[in-house]
Amino acid sequence: MTRPHATDHALPIDAWRLAQAPWYRPSGDEADCFAAACAARLPILLKGPTGCGKTRLVEHMAWTLGRPLVTIACHEDMTAGDLIGRYLLDGNGTYWQDGPLTMAVRHGAICYLDEVVEARNDTTVAIHPLTDARRFLPIDKHNEVIAAHPDFLLVMSFNPHYQHRSKDLKTSTRQRFVALDMGWPDAQAEAQIVAHESGADAALARQLVELGARTRTRAAAALQEGASTRLLIYAATLIAGGMDARTACRVAVIQPLSDDADLCAALSAVVDSLFA
Amino acid sequence: MTRPHATDHALPIDAWRLAQAPWYRPSGDEADCFAAACAARLPILLKGPTGCGKTRLVEHMAWTLGRPLVTIACHEDMTAGDLIGRYLLDGNGTYWQDGPLTMAVRHGAICYLDEVVEARNDTTVAIHPLTDARRFLPIDKHNEVIAAHPDFLLVMSFNPHYQHRSKDLKTSTRQRFVALDMGWPDAQAEAQIVAHESGADAALARQLVELGARTRTRAAAALQEGASTRLLIYAATLIAGGMDARTACRVAVIQPLSDDADLCAALSAVVDSLFA
Amino acid sequence: MTRPHATDHALPIDAWRLAQAPWYRPSGDEADCFAAACAARLPILLKGPTGCGKTRLVEHMAWTLGRPLVTIACHEDMTAGDLIGRYLLDGNGTYWQDGPLTMAVRHGAICYLDEVVEARNDTTVAIHPLTDARRFLPIDKHNEVIAAHPDFLLVMSFNPHYQHRSKDLKTSTRQRFVALDMGWPDAQAEAQIVAHESGADAALARQLVELGARTRTRAAAALQEGASTRLLIYAATLIAGGMDARTACRVAVIQPLSDDADLCAALSAVVDSLFA
Amino acid sequence: MTRPHATDHALPIDAWRLAQAPWYRPSGDEADCFAAACAARLPILLKGPTGCGKTRLVEHMAWTLGRPLVTIACHEDMTAGDLIGRYLLDGNGTYWQDGPLTMAVRHGAICYLDEVVEARNDTTVAIHPLTDARRFLPIDKHNEVIAAHPDFLLVMSFNPHYQHRSKDLKTSTRQRFVALDMGWPDAQAEAQIVAHESGADAALARQLVELGARTRTRAAAALQEGASTRLLIYAATLIAGGMDARTACRVAVIQPLSDDADLCAALSAVVDSLFA
Amino acid sequence: MTRPHATDHALPIDAWRLAQAPWYRPSGDEADCFAAACAARLPILLKGPTGCGKTRLVEHMAWTLGRPLVTIACHEDMTAGDLIGRYLLDGNGTYWQDGPLTMAVRHGAICYLDEVVEARNDTTVAIHPLTDARRFLPIDKHNEVIAAHPDFLLVMSFNPHYQHRSKDLKTSTRQRFVALDMGWPDAQAEAQIVAHESGADAALARQLVELGARTRTRAAAALQEGASTRLLIYAATLIAGGMDARTACRVAVIQPLSDDADLCAALSAVVDSLFA
Amino acid sequence: MTRPHATDHALPIDAWRLAQAPWYRPSGDEADCFAAACAARLPILLKGPTGCGKTRLVEHMAWTLGRPLVTIACHEDMTAGDLIGRYLLDGNGTYWQDGPLTMAVRHGAICYLDEVVEARNDTTVAIHPLTDARRFLPIDKHNEVIAAHPDFLLVMSFNPHYQHRSKDLKTSTRQRFVALDMGWPDAQAEAQIVAHESGADAALARQLVELGARTRTRAAAALQEGASTRLLIYAATLIAGGMDARTACRVAVIQPLSDDADLCAALSAVVDSLFA
Repeated sequence: MTRPHATDHALPIDAWRLAQAPWYRPSGDEADCFAAACAARLPILLKGPTGCGKTRLVEHMAWTLGRPLVTIACHEDMTAGDLIGRYLLDGNGTYWQDGPLTMAVRHGAICYLDEVVEARNDTTVAIHPLTDARRFLPIDKHNEVIAAHPDFLLVMSFNPHYQHRSKDLKTSTRQRFVALDMGWPDAQAEAQIVAHESGADAALARQLVELGARTRTRAAAALQEGASTRLLIYAATLIAGGMDARTACRVAVIQPLSDDADLCAALSAVVDSLFA
Repeated sequence: MTRPHATDHALPIDAWRLAQAPWYRPSGDEADCFAAACAARLPILLKGPTGCGKTRLVEHMAWTLGRPLVTIACHEDMTAGDLIGRYLLDGNGTYWQDGPLTMAVRHGAICYLDEVVEARNDTTVAIHPLTDARRFLPIDKHNEVIAAHPDFLLVMSFNPHYQHRSKDLKTSTRQRFVALDMGWPDAQAEAQIVAHESGADAALARQLVELGARTRTRAAAALQEGASTRLLIYAATLIAGGMDARTACRVAVIQPLSDDADLCAALSAVVDSLFA
Repeated sequence: MTRPHATDHALPIDAWRLAQAPWYRPSGDEADCFAAACAARLPILLKGPTGCGKTRLVEHMAWTLGRPLVTIACHEDMTAGDLIGRYLLDGNGTYWQDGPLTMAVRHGAICYLDEVVEARNDTTVAIHPLTDARRFLPIDKHNEVIAAHPDFLLVMSFNPHYQHRSKDLKTSTRQRFVALDMGWPDAQAEAQIVAHESGADAALARQLVELGARTRTRAAAALQEGASTRLLIYAATLIAGGMDARTACRVAVIQPLSDDADLCAALSAVVDSLFA
Repeated sequence: MTRPHATDHALPIDAWRLAQAPWYRPSGDEADCFAAACAARLPILLKGPTGCGKTRLVEHMAWTLGRPLVTIACHEDMTAGDLIGRYLLDGNGTYWQDGPLTMAVRHGAICYLDEVVEARNDTTVAIHPLTDARRFLPIDKHNEVIAAHPDFLLVMSFNPHYQHRSKDLKTSTRQRFVALDMGWPDAQAEAQIVAHESGADAALARQLVELGARTRTRAAAALQEGASTRLLIYAATLIAGGMDARTACRVAVIQPLSDDADLCAALSAVVDSLFA
Repeated sequence: MTRPHATDHALPIDAWRLAQAPWYRPSGDEADCFAAACAARLPILLKGPTGCGKTRLVEHMAWTLGRPLVTIACHEDMTAGDLIGRYLLDGNGTYWQDGPLTMAVRHGAICYLDEVVEARNDTTVAIHPLTDARRFLPIDKHNEVIAAHPDFLLVMSFNPHYQHRSKDLKTSTRQRFVALDMGWPDAQAEAQIVAHESGADAALARQLVELGARTRTRAAAALQEGASTRLLIYAATLIAGGMDARTACRVAVIQPLSDDADLCAALSAVVDSLFA
Repeated sequence: MTRPHATDHALPIDAWRLAQAPWYRPSGDEADCFAAACAARLPILLKGPTGCGKTRLVEHMAWTLGRPLVTIACHEDMTAGDLIGRYLLDGNGTYWQDGPLTMAVRHGAICYLDEVVEARNDTTVAIHPLTDARRFLPIDKHNEVIAAHPDFLLVMSFNPHYQHRSKDLKTSTRQRFVALDMGWPDAQAEAQIVAHESGADAALARQLVELGARTRTRAAAALQEGASTRLLIYAATLIAGGMDARTACRVAVIQPLSDDADLCAALSAVVDSLFA
């Protein structure tokens, strides 16, 4: 049980510092562009498919820049209050508790809004004054106006493949960001990543990357998205742990991708051809 | 009446330990794959129709692994707060109470989200940081970041037969899980299960399994789903308790499956032919 | 004014015991099937039209079995909290108050969810762990897991004639219940019921039952449902109290059934022919 | 300012007693049927168009029977709690306050739910146990079950002309009521009412009743409903107060009925022909 | 900061008295009809387009009759509680605070519900008992029934041009009001109003009124509504303050009316021809 | 942690004073019209596309006029309470806290409602009494009526390009404002702005302005909106910081504008031609 005594109200920004360097392998100029936008204090929008490495890039940059990283997974029930803060009650009445965005603004952290299109409008509008020349956060609830710490950086991610749905980023929000378009790493880089993360050998990693590539080609036709690097790492990890390669591909790649029996059979044939 | 005195705030994780070994009969490699994913600390998605044994598999694995099992039946009114926790009020002000997911994360339990597609987006997004390399749970409400206990395992179930409706798992969620595709047990295994659970003899169990198989064939045509193993056990139990077989099949299989008079008559004819 | 003093928190389960035996006349094997399912601790679903006697059957069984009967009329604004319980506040802080379902689970009552399709999903999902082999009720709000009392029995009712609307029972819920299909009693039985409940003589009761039967034939065509036994009892009661038979049929049968002038005129002609 | 001191919690049922006899002129057997249903303790549904005298009939019966009349105007934002009661907070913690329905049930008043189709389902379902042989009101919020006072009578009104819209009374609710179909009074009776209520002379009242009749004929074509008796009384009152008859008909009959210029012109021509 | 001490709970009805006579120029018999309805204690519905003078008429009548004027701008998020009142909390527990409608009912003010179709049903239904012979306001929240002060008058406004949208006044509400149909003042009257309010000379006022008239003709075709008198006063005020007439017409008439470039150009041509 | 002690309730209007003169370069008569409307105490509506300088104009005028500027970013979850104020709780009970609009009304600030079409109806209706001759703000929650400070000015912005969506300003709201139609600055002015804000040289600024102009031509066809001046400044800033011009245009102009691969390629060709 955690009781918020007065002495507990110390600022918890240090809880968000990374404990160790994340392993990161750049696939293009995304890290350089990120660093340049950060130096110019411009907010950053990361665009790319599920599991292509957006979160990992942000972690790498936070470690490199030595800043805390406050990550917020956006969803449609998240309110501006969840970001900014709220009043709580103890024996002495109400007191204010900063939300994660406010903490990042005050203390100069990187604030990473993951899958921002999932958030409601009040969330995206709340960040507008932070993303132009004003760089301040108004806290209406207690009439405070916080000037952003010089090291504060706002980063958001979104997946353009979902963009044709009912949710989309408003133009007036998009035009406040430097946007980095991230795709899948090339085959060699991805094989290195799969091998490094799973402990699998290079040959297996290359085979799995080839499997991933084939699902991505197929994605335009029948699958919503191809296999992410993460799923390939899952399969490699299971195989490295002793599981049969075909079984591992079935449970870590095919079944997560589709519930359609015909499609699963087609993908199984691909697996069989690669792991014959 | 239960009053949450300060002394009541002991962690109730042990309330979720199974009291006895559940009876379990594997129908394929699902238990082995589950164990391998668990050993690699990969989250697991169980796919399959109503009553095919998903819950029983999780109970079996929890018992085998010696871990508490926190089961959460998902529904569309469940909020992230129901999973993560909330502030309560006593005479000394507010105090924090962990929700079931947070308990499982802290204490190394298996957390089983049953019928996860029923949950709202904020629930499924809340589990994202727990289902990749980060394995942490941010608790925004009091700015705590919990690193998952090494024994924590997240398992979710969903029924792909409902997938064509408005609700579906987002790709960005699916691609975070090892997925096990479970179907009905084969006839021999199912007859063993029915006999074991109901105390019925083997011949009756085989007859009921045959009835179940015929409703499943018919399912593609007119029924939404065929009879679950559970319904067959219900019928066997009632017959073992002295009820006429046709009556038992009527109230435990036919009437639960359909309200359509013609369809019920057709199913009755099947029952009559099997229990002539 | 009722103030919930500490001393008021005595368990009110006895408030739900029936004071006297309800009059009940079986029309088929429904009471026997109910008793058998109850003995096997299987949950029961009562299917049938408005006013055919579902509630009366449950009352009869509760009296026969000597168990309290907790009846809950379901509606779309009912939350899981209304069933399970909630925290209330008095001078000493918050305390927990069991909801009606929790009371029934703890103390071994029959819990009757009337018109369950009206309830929201969170209500129907909340009962899932009570309706399989587990038979427990998790109370997330204070992390308690209640094993059901051996005498606890869950009964739900629904009217399949409404089933074609937007609301329907989920298959994963239906397949957890033994289902009893109830219809109108046969003419002789219904006349006995009407006479017994209203104090009317047998001849009048038979005439009214004939009127009811004609409205039910017509129901398929223009009426949503035919007259319930309850409406026939209303008419008999008014006639027994001195009202003219045609007037009583108009206000207790025709006007409650329809607002359409042509349909009411057609039904009046039926009344005229029966009570000429 | 009204502060609910403990001493203020006296039961306010007497606030709902009528201070004087309402003037009432029966147009058919509605008062006799009402009295008979009341004597048999059967709930009553009043059906009829806007302003035809439903409220006045209930007031007349409440005065004749010597019972308090608790009137509740239903609307779609009304909750079951608004009817049944709620917990309030004072310096000693929470206390329960009966809602208007609960008051009527405890103390034997007539409870009149005006325009019941406007209410949400939870409201109409909450009254079910009060409208069959059980005659009790369960108060889930503090687990109380109130047996209705013998003099308690439930009356509801609805306007079948609105019935074709999205809102309708459920069959399972309708079949719990004796239903009285009320229409416009005949011309002579309506003229007496208009004259009595406005102080206008009989000739003017007859002219206005004729105007009303013509708007009701037209209603099927272009108007949603014809002029109510209330509007005719308004016009008569304004004329009795010195206003020109055509002006009074314009502001008290035509303009309230329609915003369509052509329709208003047509109605003006009717007025001109009657008040030439 | 305003703290509601006990001594602050003085009734604030006097805050709603007009400080000075509003300037008012009648355009028809609307003031006479208003006065007659008021004398007969009949509620009043003002119908007319945006900015035609409905609010000004009510202010004029309130001043003439010497009554406070409580104005409530209706919107779809306004609840019955916003009108009627609510419980607030201070150090001694909760106390009741009258809402603006309740204040007006108690103290004999004119209560003006502006744009009533914007309000939710619970708001319009809450006023029903105030708008027939009963003239009382039930306050369910603390079971009080307030008889209206003899000087209480209810006035509502609505704009029939919006009526074809999803929102409309219910017939059962409309038929409770005397309705005054207000349109634009005639050209001479409007020029007087524009000159009086802006300080502009008569010639300019006439030119602006001519501009307004042309936009109103055009309204049926392309504009949603023509220019209100208020916009003409804005333009006159800016010109009287030294702005070029064409610029003033652009920013005070054309740009507020439309965002369509073609339509703005057409309106500019009208301005050019009038202010050549 | 910020605890609202009684001594903290000083009025925070000074927090909203600008610390330094914003750089502003007029592109038309918008500043003059703004000043004239302000002198006449008429509310102002700024119409124009994303990033054309609406916020900057308001800041310039606030600095020039020496008034505090309270900026409120509107969104669909903002309630009238967020604007007007609310009751908070401390150890002495509840106290009232002015919202940002109320602060501006009391103390004579400019209140700027940014993107007002995003707000709910209750927000826009709440400002109606402030935007006509009455100039007062009723605070229903504690029955206070605030006359606006003579220096209070209401300014709203909206983007007509979004107007064809489901959200639009109501005519009854529009006709309360002087409206200034703002577009992109001309090429020379925009180049000056880009150079001033980014520190880039004039030649580069002109090239980027040319790029912006080409995206705006294209906007009618495929892009929702062309590049804002803000994006051009971003690109110039990155180039001034050492980034390659084509990369800067990719991440600061092309990628923020579109996710469509073909469109991005076409825009890249434009960039290549300009920065060959």
